[in-house]
Parts: sequence; structure tokens; C-alpha cells
Amino acid sequence: MTHELISQLFMPRFKNTMLESLMDSTLFEVNKGRLAVSTDGFVVNPYFFPGGNIGDLAINGTVNDLLMSGATPLYLTVSFILEEGLPFEHLVTIAESMASATKSAQVQLIAGDTKVVEHGSADGLFITTTGIGSVPDGVNWNPQEVKPGDQIIVSGTIGDHGASVLASRYEMDFDSNIVSDTCHLRDLVLAVRDLPGIRCMRDPTRGGLATTLYELAQASQLNYRIYEKQVPIAESVRGLCEVLGLDPLYVANEGKLVAVVSKEVAETVLTRFQQLEAGKNARIIGEITEELKGWPTLVTPLGASRILDLLSVEQLPRIC
Amino acid sequence: MTHELISQLFMPRFKNTMLESLMDSTLFEVNKGRLAVSTDGFVVNPYFFPGGNIGDLAINGTVNDLLMSGATPLYLTVSFILEEGLPFEHLVTIAESMASATKSAQVQLIAGDTKVVEHGSADGLFITTTGIGSVPDGVNWNPQEVKPGDQIIVSGTIGDHGASVLASRYEMDFDSNIVSDTCHLRDLVLAVRDLPGIRCMRDPTRGGLATTLYELAQASQLNYRIYEKQVPIAESVRGLCEVLGLDPLYVANEGKLVAVVSKEVAETVLTRFQQLEAGKNARIIGEITEELKGWPTLVTPLGASRILDLLSVEQLPRIC
Repeated sequence: MTHELISQLFMPRFKNTMLESLMDSTLFEVNKGRLAVSTDGFVVNPYFFPGGNIGDLAINGTVNDLLMSGATPLYLTVSFILEEGLPFEHLVTIAESMASATKSAQVQLIAGDTKVVEHGSADGLFITTTGIGSVPDGVNWNPQEVKPGDQIIVSGTIGDHGASVLASRYEMDFDSNIVSDTCHLRDLVLAVRDLPGIRCMRDPTRGGLATTLYELAQASQLNYRIYEKQVPIAESVRGLCEVLGLDPLYVANEGKLVAVVSKEVAETVLTRFQQLEAGKNARIIGEITEELKGWPTLVTPLGASRILDLLSVEQLPRIC
Repeated sequence: MTHELISQLFMPRFKNTMLESLMDSTLFEVNKGRLAVSTDGFVVNPYFFPGGNIGDLAINGTVNDLLMSGATPLYLTVSFILEEGLPFEHLVTIAESMASATKSAQVQLIAGDTKVVEHGSADGLFITTTGIGSVPDGVNWNPQEVKPGDQIIVSGTIGDHGASVLASRYEMDFDSNIVSDTCHLRDLVLAVRDLPGIRCMRDPTRGGLATTLYELAQASQLNYRIYEKQVPIAESVRGLCEVLGLDPLYVANEGKLVAVVSKEVAETVLTRFQQLEAGKNARIIGEITEELKGWPTLVTPLGASRILDLLSVEQLPRIC
């Protein structure tokens, strides 16, 4: 049955000569240089949500992790864990979303695996993707390159993905206009990769913007100061978060990036982002200071400042 | 909590500078040439069994898939899906087995991910590993290179892994001496990789020796003829299979390989295998003919011949 699943469901949708070899491993040619590799498991519940499903999420998520190191994403592998009884038409929809997402992100799926577990031993399906990309010479993005005075840019509204999953999880009515932002960040990254002064990028997924800033602040040992009124948040997402008592700064994104760039190139990066659909709501949201090394801080509209600490408990489990 | 899991459980056991960067993706240098990539999900039930656990299985399984294409395994990524309530000490034991298996196989774990799902949404833990290896120039192992007259070699007794998992699943008493063969095949492969006349190798995991021969026969469009009395099977495994009504030819292995080699080098390959612990029970079990193209056949001790067809239903689910 696994043979049939592979030959009838997956093969026609991910047609390429490398995958067709059906070997235990797949070979590909590389030039001398640096490769980036990233792996991510996806367990989002429910696996269909407004704006996407676990399939395109699994492609975009790993593609974006590669992009965040400045890599051009090239190849993906995918491993499915399927629960017995998963409706076949759901799997077809998910496979089609994955095919479409790989095409859009210009990556090739070159190896895969499928395991089936009994009903009750998994929750629908889980997908693990691993990506390989090439990093051009001269691109060395790293939070340790961040310097005081650098600017913090976010590529669009935050919290959309987490809010859409939450809304669909609880089948809420009032939120029908909230849609996941799941998409690849290829265009945004490639539009600015040639610029000097790009220090580092991250995609604020699990744990949202605040958790990403915390991790960057710890890695840079500098203060990441952002201004509350500068952070773009859709009204619908803000409303949902208020009702549920959630802080949108900690809600997951799946099609946004945070870039830390030198003051000199900040406006150029912003303009290039805003010219792209994926970056039309990009904003400069703050800057790097030396005041509270290792911590991110949020400046409220009244000028008060508070630390954005790591949440000890995940606010939203199984958001990706 | 994920941060703690990573920093306290995994980091100390997989210490290397690439993993320590804690970025979304990890960079590594490559030379011009061919890389092999392979991915595999592991859902074995139970996750502890005589001779190993899901952790070393996940390392060895992916390492072996790389080796089967003639690659030297270099890097691994690992993605965990953990069920809430999984005993922490189980995870420690599994992580330690993984660390030990990576060391033994001489691979570096360079990226990882951990997701936790609610109690009841997974079955203990699932692990997906993806491996990257380099393939030397001149190594082009492929079932399409197989020619009539080539010899089929198996590196040791078959069915040990499947039998050990089955025995522990049903807590059988009479089988206490059956132990999984989970191990890497690095030494075996590197011992013969320099020889001309190696056509292809496969590790007969899920579906066992018969399924692997079926896949090879289909890929080569030749007949893979094996002799029943030549196939090494441990008495304890044979006994368990008889009691349960299973055909050991279809029972999974996790530390064995099938090699198809030219007649000229067959004895050399056999001797080199037998000099190694992992290959001490290696045997030439049959040869390639043109009689029934695309099919494997088994010749019984009485000289009768039967086709080894693909089983339409997996004999043993969740064996790896």
C-alpha cells in the first residue's frame, strides 16, 4: 500500500528525475562552497486552516529557515507519518498544496518517506521537511554581526498565522477574515541579499516576534528595542487576541521575517520589501541599543518600556 | 520548555560547533562533487526493544540508506515529535543511544527540531532523520548496472530486527535470545567500495529481503534467483516465525545489506565482509538470470522455484 501511495499520490505531483530513481538515497551535484541545512517537524492542529494547510506550511517553513541564513533554497526532503483512517482526499489536497508550494518557492523535492500508524497513534498526519540550500560567498548573516544603531525591520503584520489556526481550532465565527500568512520569503530575501549591512534575518514562527527578538538579543548580547505603535498588527488579529487574552507579539507567523540591518541601508531594505506583495506592510519597528544587553524591550505609546521575556509555557501548542 | 529540552538534553550529547550556533539552519562546507541525501521517519512500536531503541534505529537507518548509494555519511538532522507525558528518562536513554550511534557511524548531527503534542496525539515519540553524504567519483551503484551472472550476497542472518520487535511487542518468553541487528553498515561498505564490479547495494529493512529483491528485480528488469538453503537465518528467528506464521524472508532487518556484484569479485567481497563483525555470517545466496525478468525467485532445497511477490499488506506494521 505504501508503494501505491508513493507511485499514485506523490510521484505524479513531484515529478523530477531525481525522485523517480526511487533509491534509498538521492544524489545531487554541488559546487565547492557552503550549503545550509534545516529540518522542521509540523504537527499543526487542525491540519487545514484558513489560508493553508500542514502541507504548504511544511514546505514554506523549511524554505524560510534556509532563506534566513541567506541561502538560496534548492532541495527538500519530506517524511510523512500518517494515521490510519486519514481521509484519502485530505492527503490529496495536502499533496497538491505541497506541490504548488515547492513550485512557487523554486525548490525540488528529492527524497521522501511515508509511515502509517494505527488509528489513535497519531493525530491525522505529521510532516517533517528537511531543506538544503546554497549560501553565496560573502553572505555571513549572524546575530553576532549586529551593532548598536542597527535598525529592526519586520516584513508585515504579525500574528496572522497563529490567529488563523486558533480561530479554526475553536470554530469561531467573528474571525472569518483572519487568514494564515503562510508563504515563502524567497522574493523578500533575494531582493536585498546583495546589500551590505544586512546583519541577520529570522522568521518569527513559534513564539512569535517577541520570542525571536529574545533569541536574537541573547545571541547578540545587545538590546533590541521596538516601538509598540510601529509594529504592524491587523485589526482582526488584534481583536481576536484581546478576546482570548493573548499577546500578539507572541503569536506565530509563517510568512514574515525580521531583519536587522545597518542604519545606512535600512530605508533601501524597507523600500525593496514594500515593493513586493509579501512585504507591502513592512515597517522599521525599532533599533539596537546597548542599554539592556541580551534583552528585547517594548516601548509603549506613552513612552514606558518593558522587557519582552521568554514565555515559560508555550502560549499556543501545535501552531505549526 | 523546548528551550530547556534542547539546551539540557540534546546539546550536551551532540556537542559540535555547527549545532551550537542554534540558528534556523546550519551551514557546512562542501567540495565540488556529488552528495547523497536520504530521509526516514521512525515510528517503531515499542520504542525500546532487545538490542536497541528508536534512537539508534533512526541514526543507523538513515546512515545505512546513504551507504547503500556508496556515499560516505557525513551529516544528519533529527526531528522529534514527542507525546506529552513521555517519561523524561526514556528520552534521556534514547538521546544517549543516538549520541553513541552517531559517534560509531562517524556522522555529525547538525540540525534538529522538537515538537510536543498532547497526550493521545502520538504514540510516545516519532523521530525523522535526514542524512547527507558524499559520493566519491567513480562510484555509480545502481540496479540498472546489474547483469546476468552477477552474484547476490547478504551480509548476515535475516529477520533479526523484525523478530526482536515482535517478540518485545507481545512480551513473549521463549524468544529472549532474539536481539535486533540495528547497526551501521559503514565498515562493510567502505571495505569493498574500491572494488570494480559492485553493481548496487540495498538494506532490506521494511518488507525484508524478499521485498528488497522484488524492488531490485523490478529496477533491473532481471531475475534475482536465491537459494533457500543459502539464506542465513538464526534458529531462534526461524522458530519465532514458524510459531507466528510469518515468512522470515519478509521480516525487517536493520543492520544487513544485500549486495549485487560481478562474479569476478564475489569471493573477494564475501571474504572482506566475513572478516568484519557485521559481516561474519555473510553468504552468497544466489545469482542474476534472465529467466523471469523483473521478478525474484526462491529455489527450495528440493529444487522447486517460486516467485517472491510483493506482499499487498504490510506483514508487520511499525517495525521501524
